[in-house]
Amino acid sequence: MKSAIEGLEAKGRAAKAASRRMAYLSAEVKNKALHNIAADLLAKKDEILSANKIDYKEAEALGMSADMLDRLMLNAERLEAIAGDVLAVAALHDPVGEVFDMRTLPNGLQIGRKRVPLGVIGAIYESRPNVTIDISVLCLKSGNAVILRGGKEAIHSNSALARVVQDATTRAGVPDGAVQFIENTDRALVNQMLRMGDIIDLIIPRGGAELIKFISDNATMPVVSGGVGVCHTYVDQSADVDKAVAIAFNAKVQRPTVCNALDSLLVHADIAQRYLPLVAAEWAKAGVEMHCDERALSILKPYSSLKLVPATDEDWGKEFLSLVAAVKVVDSLDEALVHIERYGSGHSEAIITEGYGAAMRFLNEVDAACVYVNASTRFTDGGQFGLGAEVGISTQKMHARGPLGVKELTSYKWIIFGSGQVRT
Amino acid sequence: MKSAIEGLEAKGRAAKAASRRMAYLSAEVKNKALHNIAADLLAKKDEILSANKIDYKEAEALGMSADMLDRLMLNAERLEAIAGDVLAVAALHDPVGEVFDMRTLPNGLQIGRKRVPLGVIGAIYESRPNVTIDISVLCLKSGNAVILRGGKEAIHSNSALARVVQDATTRAGVPDGAVQFIENTDRALVNQMLRMGDIIDLIIPRGGAELIKFISDNATMPVVSGGVGVCHTYVDQSADVDKAVAIAFNAKVQRPTVCNALDSLLVHADIAQRYLPLVAAEWAKAGVEMHCDERALSILKPYSSLKLVPATDEDWGKEFLSLVAAVKVVDSLDEALVHIERYGSGHSEAIITEGYGAAMRFLNEVDAACVYVNASTRFTDGGQFGLGAEVGISTQKMHARGPLGVKELTSYKWIIFGSGQVRT
Repeated sequence: MKSAIEGLEAKGRAAKAASRRMAYLSAEVKNKALHNIAADLLAKKDEILSANKIDYKEAEALGMSADMLDRLMLNAERLEAIAGDVLAVAALHDPVGEVFDMRTLPNGLQIGRKRVPLGVIGAIYESRPNVTIDISVLCLKSGNAVILRGGKEAIHSNSALARVVQDATTRAGVPDGAVQFIENTDRALVNQMLRMGDIIDLIIPRGGAELIKFISDNATMPVVSGGVGVCHTYVDQSADVDKAVAIAFNAKVQRPTVCNALDSLLVHADIAQRYLPLVAAEWAKAGVEMHCDERALSILKPYSSLKLVPATDEDWGKEFLSLVAAVKVVDSLDEALVHIERYGSGHSEAIITEGYGAAMRFLNEVDAACVYVNASTRFTDGGQFGLGAEVGISTQKMHARGPLGVKELTSYKWIIFGSGQVRT
Repeated sequence: MKSAIEGLEAKGRAAKAASRRMAYLSAEVKNKALHNIAADLLAKKDEILSANKIDYKEAEALGMSADMLDRLMLNAERLEAIAGDVLAVAALHDPVGEVFDMRTLPNGLQIGRKRVPLGVIGAIYESRPNVTIDISVLCLKSGNAVILRGGKEAIHSNSALARVVQDATTRAGVPDGAVQFIENTDRALVNQMLRMGDIIDLIIPRGGAELIKFISDNATMPVVSGGVGVCHTYVDQSADVDKAVAIAFNAKVQRPTVCNALDSLLVHADIAQRYLPLVAAEWAKAGVEMHCDERALSILKPYSSLKLVPATDEDWGKEFLSLVAAVKVVDSLDEALVHIERYGSGHSEAIITEGYGAAMRFLNEVDAACVYVNASTRFTDGGQFGLGAEVGISTQKMHARGPLGVKELTSYKWIIFGSGQVRT
């Protein structure tokens, strides 16, 4: 174990050294590396897929669930899709080197901020091998070195993919050491990574809630912690009912297992009688179970085809990640705002309204990463927001909030052009 | 103690509640509050100065050093200066509410980022009572609620000043509870504050290195940690010698006790023979002690009036905070860059050169909050950079780097104007 930890530390130092040169690598070299990766993913398909087959068979033998096996599995089509994503990142605007806020001070100093990479990113992830490519590519584009630590279920796939990345980037002229992969899957190395605050500038966890919590609690450096999305949609008294049905349906049903899906539906009392039966009928077709407060229950009781459950206190503020929604009738926008303030997780919140004043109050007063008027919270996503690929979604307020793209993997430094100025 | 902790938690909840409304308070109300504070500092001068006299006499009786007593002391002139600073903050552009990156997506969603306050700022500081006003005013301007916890040496002064702020802000229409002051000076309350990560979004420590380290190590929320400034000035072979003398003199002597003062002077071997005696003669007039490497020592030995000490390993990477400088002769820009990378603290670094290529390489390759060409590192300061007042200087890369002004006390939220869009 001692030698594995020393090996990790050596990789860390190599990444740090590479990161210094990555900081001023041209967009041309970085994009060449990305194009190489995309090409090699296809050219080395057989090698990658055989490595993946080993992981898959081992996981199958160990009784991994079908859902997890699906996450682990690569095939030609998936590799092509991954290669396509790499090219999409290559096509993004390079955030590094942009100078902003540049101005000349009265004493003649020219001063501005120049966008620079963060330095070294650590990625800790579970069984999806595509994350190896995903994170490497975003780090390369943003000029960061990266240390990759994938789960042991995918170790053969990840090793093969990391080799592809390392070979393709070196060939393009990216400094050696910019992409580090940890072969050893011992948990002790994760703990060691989390202690390397002098080397690693940011940790990106990708995986289940348990992994993310462990990393957030133990890391000595900043962590991208998206965490929980408890998302509300509030249907105001002046809502367009058709839009409100379509949006609530989409937000709950289109992909219920993700953080930006609807968890709680709040409905103004003046529209509840008309709206609730309509949305409930649509949801019922998709198998949505509704955990209703008393008033919602009394409105919906007559409709026998619905899956209705009386709501309990635990239903408010719960991230369901499944075809379940909590439903509550409120008497006012104010009551909705208070409810969201109390139970929301600061992720994505929506109001459905045709009232200008209600829309503006909701936008101003709701404190969340993404606040919507008349749209589905499912849009909270780097790709949907036009950022290109995303690293994660942050519900923190420091640094960056909401979907994190390549720009959010950068910092800035102040650059000052003088001509002999001294301070008086 | 239990009741004091409950009291602190109640203050925290009150600040949080106020912060929700502060987020969309108009610039007009906030500036009115700042003008009230400036006026009241003068109108209530006698009350403030008598409170300060109590602190001063107690501290004097306890044998506080003259230097510390000076920090504690207020008088009419100092109050006027503080009031002037408050008006300067009032005159700054209000960062809150600015919408940026606004655009329309192909599906018609209009999406942008809107600047919002962080929420609740905690300030923990030592014996300078002006910090009470300073931090309150920056938090008010940026729409944040604040919880103030000053040192016990200044408790009467701080209480009087906090009352001024609270009264002046309430009168202007700022929500009650926006400015909280902790009267109890028990250390346990600091520990409790650092645990209130669900209430306090950011901690600003103001004081000595020990206080800052304690807070950084124990806080459960982000901390503005400027920390150490180990600042280098590198005199390139092509430097203008007069500029290089004036800048090194200013950087070391103008205010040696602060973080942006020069610590290490690196001099290219080709210019050392000509430059070092000139800068040493100027430094000698100000009483600067030079800790020299062998080559610098051999150049300067003939000059008897200098305070020369052979440098030891501890001199590199040391923040002197006094009239001491480490001096080293290097053979190339590369050697200077490697030295700065190894020993710098990422605060402020300068090159003195007339060579375009050397200037550009230094700006590109040095990884620090502020990188200068031909200017004194003493400029690293929010006021000097044109940010207005500053909260501190960050050597972290996340969120904001270098001097932090009111804009750096903000975050953003994504606002999305839809017309019924759903995700497909």
